[in-house]
Amino acid sequence: MRTYDITLTISPDLPTWPGDPGVEIERVEKIEDGSNANVSRVDMGVHTGTHVDAPYHFLQDGITVDELNLSLLTGRAYVLHLPEVDLITAAVLEEAQIPPRTRRVLFKTRNSELWAGAETEFQTDFVGLSEDGAEYLVRRGVKLVGMDYLSIAPFKQSRPTHERLLEAGVVVVEGLNLTEVDQGRYTIYCLPLKIANSDGAPARAILIGV
Amino acid sequence: MRTYDITLTISPDLPTWPGDPGVEIERVEKIEDGSNANVSRVDMGVHTGTHVDAPYHFLQDGITVDELNLSLLTGRAYVLHLPEVDLITAAVLEEAQIPPRTRRVLFKTRNSELWAGAETEFQTDFVGLSEDGAEYLVRRGVKLVGMDYLSIAPFKQSRPTHERLLEAGVVVVEGLNLTEVDQGRYTIYCLPLKIANSDGAPARAILIGV
Repeated sequence: MRTYDITLTISPDLPTWPGDPGVEIERVEKIEDGSNANVSRVDMGVHTGTHVDAPYHFLQDGITVDELNLSLLTGRAYVLHLPEVDLITAAVLEEAQIPPRTRRVLFKTRNSELWAGAETEFQTDFVGLSEDGAEYLVRRGVKLVGMDYLSIAPFKQSRPTHERLLEAGVVVVEGLNLTEVDQGRYTIYCLPLKIANSDGAPARAILIGV
Repeated sequence: MRTYDITLTISPDLPTWPGDPGVEIERVEKIEDGSNANVSRVDMGVHTGTHVDAPYHFLQDGITVDELNLSLLTGRAYVLHLPEVDLITAAVLEEAQIPPRTRRVLFKTRNSELWAGAETEFQTDFVGLSEDGAEYLVRRGVKLVGMDYLSIAPFKQSRPTHERLLEAGVVVVEGLNLTEVDQGRYTIYCLPLKIANSDGAPARAILIGV
């Protein structure tokens, strides 16, 4: 059983969402300067790199990331490869024939090529999930949706897609790096930091082949 | 199979190591102020709360946290309950009869009572692992060691214990909350953030009953 690390590396070079805080990493204690140990500090937005959105990101009465149910964040998942698609709509999903009883879906799109190419500039023309695509997934009983760019929704259309998913208690995982992963079934462990009362948290996510 | 979250919640109230950066969490975009979404920022030391030490924390030529092998961070683990012990020595471990072929050991000590009591002040009299205890674990082939306080080593004696473990490629996990967990066998998923070139990283860690 192979383990795939589907997490982006957090560094100041990582593209971040326009207007969000950037990534700052600083080594504040250095052995070479006489300290007992090397100790670093990180300052970043909680939606940096591979991360989880809590309902509170878009819903004022939504739960926060420390309250998310671990049983949604771990378990069987299906990676759907859509290399030719610019917008993931209900029609696209209908045609894709996601296996019955799928509860967690990760979308591998042309976005993944950006990570393969180590692109450091934020891109606006990434592939996203439409509002009707989100409604389709909710109707199907999906409980976790993952995307291989920094938002699940198309650029400048964040709210409708996020609202449909987060209102339905769907966990949204963004910033996945699926370059090494083929379409198929896996077990996912997506573990966000447990940050008190937060609208989201950076995560480490892995897939294990089944 | 029950899942146990053995992660401390990251908040400004969490005790941090003396001299390490504190925890700052700030909501920088607020829906109630007209923003499209709630977005927070976190600023903290990488050894905050439940976290992993990379060899580079104490060894200038050691690997960094983004280079740690996931196969060490996930797999079978043994929780050893030592409620009466003030220092975990080789003699204590010999007597404890850790099961053969154990590769990951988590120590549940009286430290866990501090988390149960939600203590916010840093404590100096926590239970740690002695240098000869570290040597014993390395000889036994242990590859991951977890502790229920913010350091694996006794206070003011950090370096010898850390050096013995990190030189041998043992992953050190600190700040575990084992209050809800009994002695026995589990599967651990300890997933630190993938921070570039870092001496450590905060992690989310879970145990699954076997």
